[in-house]
This record gives sequence, structure tokens and C-alpha cells, in this order.
Amino acid sequence: MKGNIVVGQSGGPTAVINASVAGVYRRAKRLGVKKVYGMIHGIEGFLQGRLCDLDEYLGEAVRVELLKRTPSAVLGTCRYKLPEAEGHEEIYEKIFAVMEEYGIECLFYAGGNDSMDTVKQLSNYAREHGREQRFIGIPKTVDNDLPITDHCPGYGSAAKYIAATIKEIVRDNESYGLGKPHVNIVETMGRNTGWLAASAALAKGEDCSGVDAIYLPETVFDPEDFMGKIEDLATKKKSIVVTISEGLSMADGRFACELGNAGSGVDAFGHRRLAGAAITLAQMVEDRTGLKTRGIEFSVLQRAASHIVSLTDVTESYQCGVDAVNAAQEGRTGVMVTLVRSGNHPYRCGTSIHDIHAVANEVRFVPKEWIGEDGCSMKEEFIEYARPLIVGELQPIYVDGLPHHLVIRELMEKHA
Amino acid sequence: MKGNIVVGQSGGPTAVINASVAGVYRRAKRLGVKKVYGMIHGIEGFLQGRLCDLDEYLGEAVRVELLKRTPSAVLGTCRYKLPEAEGHEEIYEKIFAVMEEYGIECLFYAGGNDSMDTVKQLSNYAREHGREQRFIGIPKTVDNDLPITDHCPGYGSAAKYIAATIKEIVRDNESYGLGKPHVNIVETMGRNTGWLAASAALAKGEDCSGVDAIYLPETVFDPEDFMGKIEDLATKKKSIVVTISEGLSMADGRFACELGNAGSGVDAFGHRRLAGAAITLAQMVEDRTGLKTRGIEFSVLQRAASHIVSLTDVTESYQCGVDAVNAAQEGRTGVMVTLVRSGNHPYRCGTSIHDIHAVANEVRFVPKEWIGEDGCSMKEEFIEYARPLIVGELQPIYVDGLPHHLVIRELMEKHA
Repeated sequence: MKGNIVVGQSGGPTAVINASVAGVYRRAKRLGVKKVYGMIHGIEGFLQGRLCDLDEYLGEAVRVELLKRTPSAVLGTCRYKLPEAEGHEEIYEKIFAVMEEYGIECLFYAGGNDSMDTVKQLSNYAREHGREQRFIGIPKTVDNDLPITDHCPGYGSAAKYIAATIKEIVRDNESYGLGKPHVNIVETMGRNTGWLAASAALAKGEDCSGVDAIYLPETVFDPEDFMGKIEDLATKKKSIVVTISEGLSMADGRFACELGNAGSGVDAFGHRRLAGAAITLAQMVEDRTGLKTRGIEFSVLQRAASHIVSLTDVTESYQCGVDAVNAAQEGRTGVMVTLVRSGNHPYRCGTSIHDIHAVANEVRFVPKEWIGEDGCSMKEEFIEYARPLIVGELQPIYVDGLPHHLVIRELMEKHA
Repeated sequence: MKGNIVVGQSGGPTAVINASVAGVYRRAKRLGVKKVYGMIHGIEGFLQGRLCDLDEYLGEAVRVELLKRTPSAVLGTCRYKLPEAEGHEEIYEKIFAVMEEYGIECLFYAGGNDSMDTVKQLSNYAREHGREQRFIGIPKTVDNDLPITDHCPGYGSAAKYIAATIKEIVRDNESYGLGKPHVNIVETMGRNTGWLAASAALAKGEDCSGVDAIYLPETVFDPEDFMGKIEDLATKKKSIVVTISEGLSMADGRFACELGNAGSGVDAFGHRRLAGAAITLAQMVEDRTGLKTRGIEFSVLQRAASHIVSLTDVTESYQCGVDAVNAAQEGRTGVMVTLVRSGNHPYRCGTSIHDIHAVANEVRFVPKEWIGEDGCSMKEEFIEYARPLIVGELQPIYVDGLPHHLVIRELMEKHA
């Protein structure tokens, strides 16, 4: 490449999205790219001309290591969805103008479905208007719901956090073995797909009895079946731990969090209710059974826990950044890097490049055949798929007892 | 010691309470004690004659290392409070009968205030009835609210988890720097004392702007002041993160979680409401300000997160077990091991032995002079106190991508 490049991050952060930035930076520098810019707050910030020079932050190797251990989008993120070009040409022209101003030949964008749509729109526009700038997508989402790619960077670390934390919750709950059963209902992210909730199945092993049931959005949620399941478990066990996905929805289309008093989506004044599905269902269980019940929501912890990332995930996230630059070097545009698995024993996974049009706006669900006949358990096929993704550790760099992170000055409050 | 010993765990589990069991076991074996028993589910299980032989589990050194990395009470816990001896002599006689049956000379009990009361009652009873058995307490509580001891084993690791996770939450929240401010309200444990909530102050450093306010139960909670604080912050910052203690109470004596719709303590049917203070206050903030607000509750995660323990805490917990045995060896009874700090630069801390009567049922609060004039910040004196307690790491033993734990067969479901 003769020109400069820019890399940006978009959508919900993950614990390893920064490793992709590290991969882009290191590979580009190796190839002799003069300037590698970071866009501050994604394409929305880029439209305002907000960029930083990554040499300033990543010039020393130890800072690249620190970046790999820094959670959330180090460059800032946005939830901006680029509108269709027709009728919004001025937005597109502004983006190309900023690229020209900074001599940017290729734009790399790490994100999920919406972000890949941005890459698609921009590469389409360039082609249709005879522009030479190139656009390449890097997959990133804890939700693991992008199509084509075997899995998404970010998912393995979120799954590792969930499974490790579930083990700790099960231990905590099992320590109370006398008296009535204790029920824990644990909620993961996943509005449309159950990849994160399913990862709770990884907790089971010779040292952990695992969770008693897992409810995914891929299966219609029946509150009465759910109550029956808990009541049945309570006749057999002292410790009950169930995992649910935030996006559970019922036959009538309502979300589970809209059930009952504590969680109706909107209150009498039309205010959005903040108690999620776990609290709502825990309330229902406690009211109906009288059992001590706790709702636990992993909230943003599951996507931000860089202190317990999967080394496999970090490495693949980094590699996706590297291979995005390699694709740009080969002149590609309008593509996304994908992960391609070739084996599990041992786990082997490489990358490929795929047309962005097949990726953008498509959602991949947990295959029905990986869900148990009871609708609330995961089959061995899922474990086989997910286990390798959580393997390996990358120890944080601790300072004064806490994991240390890299900070980009341009992102700090005063610049916002 | 000529006889055998038994060690038990009681009250809410912590991430390092098992290190005390390891310390008791290793020191006793070194002193030639023949049998070291574990009581299953504390004194309540002991009354049912439920014991295990720790040789079976801890005979190999690597298993002691595994135990140090196992969260929650490995022997099981209970919430049983021993009644006064008068009128309940049969309970006391039963305990002494089990001790005699197993040739137990000394009973070690790791726990918080209630557990120390048990040690006090049993040692009093022995003295009053001319029994020779001895009883020694080992401090343990994430709440850090035992008197006399400088701090409690368990607190340092919970504080480390809280501060590390707060850093990740702040990073996640700050990554959204465009548009309206985002508010996160994070709830820690601590019904009566604010030691855990205060530990959020440790997150602040050169790589983290820290939390914007901390509310402790030591200060009367005024919802209007709280709202004013958030509204003021929202005029200055895009990312607002506030930490609250679960036990915040207002001038009228109600808990903060009893405010508003989502969190009234009891609903119209007299059911306990499960939404805690964070969800309740987040609801209030979102309703009043229209800002995107999230309530995050650390729940049992903060006391069970053995994957990110403080090495200082693990070491001290182990040492408390060792020195409890040393005290028994010297013939002591009716005492608790305490931690005595002699310096901060460098941190130096030893142990001592203290009469249990001064400990049992007393609560230690966060000193008023460590809380900022605004009532919602921590002064440097607190940081100076708490920082050394979170320093150092003990890497888990990972198997198949997850921290591995030690399991006691007698505790398993089928034996319950």
C-alpha cells in the first residue's frame, strides 16, 4: 500500500476488540504503511474529523501488549448506522473527503452486523462513484451471530467469562446444602441468539455439576414449563442454577422480562422497566414456590472482562486484524475477514476473506440440532464447537493490584 | 496436641476461606496431629455427625494448591446460630459427644460475627462444665466488619474483584462518548457497612477516571441529593458510574431498594421484592432524567471470584489457619486470630490472638473521617488502608479453559 490507513471500532464493545486494532497496526507497519490512524468513536467520530495517530500509542511493543489486555473499544465506539447513500450523498462525500485529507487508502472497521453494513455501503459507494479507497470489515461481536465466519472474535472470551463465573456461582450455591433448595437464575446477553447463554454449558465438568437448564431465544419460552422445571428440580436438588438469555420471548411475542410485576416492559407512566428477565423470573419463582431465589445479570461484565480473556480469542482477534491488512495489500475491498475452522483435535483455525454482501444484516442462530430434546439443554455438538474457543489464558499486566489498560488521550472526557 | 482436630466454615462464603482450611490442615499435619477432620456444612452438619477426613483430599501438595484456588466454602457452610446454652444443653452436649467420638481436642471455626459467637458460646460452655476441648475462631468475611482485626480475610479479594470490574465497566461506559450521557449504578454487598462499596475507589488511577460517587450505609441516604448529584454530573460528563452499597438506608429507616415501583420491599401480596437498590435507583434516574441508565448488581460474584483473588489475601487467610493451630498448640481457647498491620511502605502484617468475647457480635464501620465531606467519596486514608490488601495475584489452575476447583465428595448433592 502506498497510502495511509484508518481503523475504527463500532457497536457493543468486547474484551478483545482491541487486539484487532493491534493486529492492523502491527501488520501495516511491517508493510511500511506510513500512518495508521484510529478513528475516535467509529464512523460517527470520523465524520467529525476525529482521528488519532496510532504511532503515538503503539510505537513501543509493550504498549501493543497492554492494548491486547485492554477491554472495550480503546478508540471509542458508536451506534451510528450509515444511511443508504441515495439522498445522503453529503455524508458519504464527507467520509471520502476526510479520507483524502489524511491520505487514507483503506478503512478497516471492526464490528457486528450494523458495522458490516457500513463497510458494504461504503465499498458500494466507492465502486459506483469510481473511488479508489477500499473498505474492509473485521468481525467482532460477543453475540457470535455473524454468518459465514465459524465464530466471531469476542465470543470466546465472553463465553469463558460466563462459564468460569457460572462455576463460581454453582460453588457458592452448593455450599448451602441444608434446608430448602436455593435457586439462582442467571441472565446472559443475547437478544436474538442464544450463543452466550449456551456457553454456560461449558461449566460442567469433573469438578462442577454445571447448570440445571439453559433457555435460549431460539426456543419459544413457556413460563409454565419453566416453573414446572424449577419445581421438579426442587424435589431432587438443594442447589438449582439456571441460565437464561436476555432475549427469551414467549408465544405471544412478549419478552420474558415483560412478565409479572417487577419486569413489565413499561410501567403505568410509560417508563421503560429496567429489571431484566432474571430478576423478573426470580420474582415469579420465589412468589410461586417460596424458595429463596436470586436473579443475577451479567450485564456488561461479560463483554468487558479482559481480566479473564481466552488466549485463543485474543490471538484470533489479532489475526483478523493482520489478515484484514493482508487483504487490503492484495487490493481487496468490500470484504470481511472470516474464521475458518479445519479441526478440533487439535483445534485448528485459519482465516479467509468473504464478500461483505453475504455477511451484512444476516443473523446466525444456534442450530436447532445442538439444542437438547427438552429445549433447555445443550448437546455435545455445541460443547465440541465452543470448548476450543475458550482455551488459553493471557495474564493481565497488573499495577497496584489491578489490571492495567491502555488509554487514548483523544478519547478522554475533555475531548468529548 | 495429642488429639485430633476439626475445622469448619460458616456464614457467607468468600473466595479465600478455603485457604484457612489449607493452613489449618498443613500446620496441624506438620505438628503431628493424627486426624484433621472437616465438618460438612459447619456446626449444623457437625451436629448431624457429618465429617470428612481431610487426608483423603489434601494429602498431596498439589491438592492444597488447588484448594487455595477454590471459591466458596469447600466443606459447605450454614447459617445456623447456636442458641444460648441455658435451656439448650442437649445441643451443646451433642457437639461435645461428636468431638469425643472422633477424639477431637480442638475445633476451628472460620466465619464472621455469628460464627465467632458460636466459638464464644462453645468455649464458655466448656469452661463452665469443666470440659477440656478447645475452640478457636478464624476471621472470614467479605464485609470486613469484624472488630479488633485490622481487616478480614476475604475482603481483599472481594475488593480486588470490585475495583477491577469497575475499571472494566468504566471503560465500557466511556467508549460511548457521543450523544447523551450514559449512567451506570453499580451495587456491592454490605448491608450495614460500606467497606465493599468503598473499594470501588481503588479503581481510579492513571489509566482510569474511577467512579463519580460512592454511597455507603454509614451515611444517611437522601434520594434527592443523589438525584441532584447525577443531574449535576450529567451536565459535565458523558460517562457516569456510581457505586452504592446494598444497605443504603434513608432518614425514615427504609432501605433505598424500597423506593419507587420496581423495588418496594414487599409487593401488594406481601411478596419480597427481588430488585435491589441499583435497579431501583437506576429506574428512578432514568424516569427523572431520561438518560440511558443501567443498574448492575455484583451479587455473589464479588465473594466467589476466585479467578481474580488477591495474593495478599490468600496468604493471610492461609496464615490465619496456621496461627489458629499454633494458638491451639499453646493451649489457647476462646480466642480468634487477628491480623495486625505494622506498616504500609512496604506493607507488613502479622497475626495475633485475641479474646473472642471482644469480637463476637461487634460490628466495625468505615471510619467517618475516611469519608469525604460530600458524603459520597473516599479520602486518601481509605486508599492507604485498602490498596495493600488487593495486591498480588494467584493464577488459577486452568483445565479446558476454566479455573479448576477441589471438590469434597461428602458435600455432593447425593449426600445432602
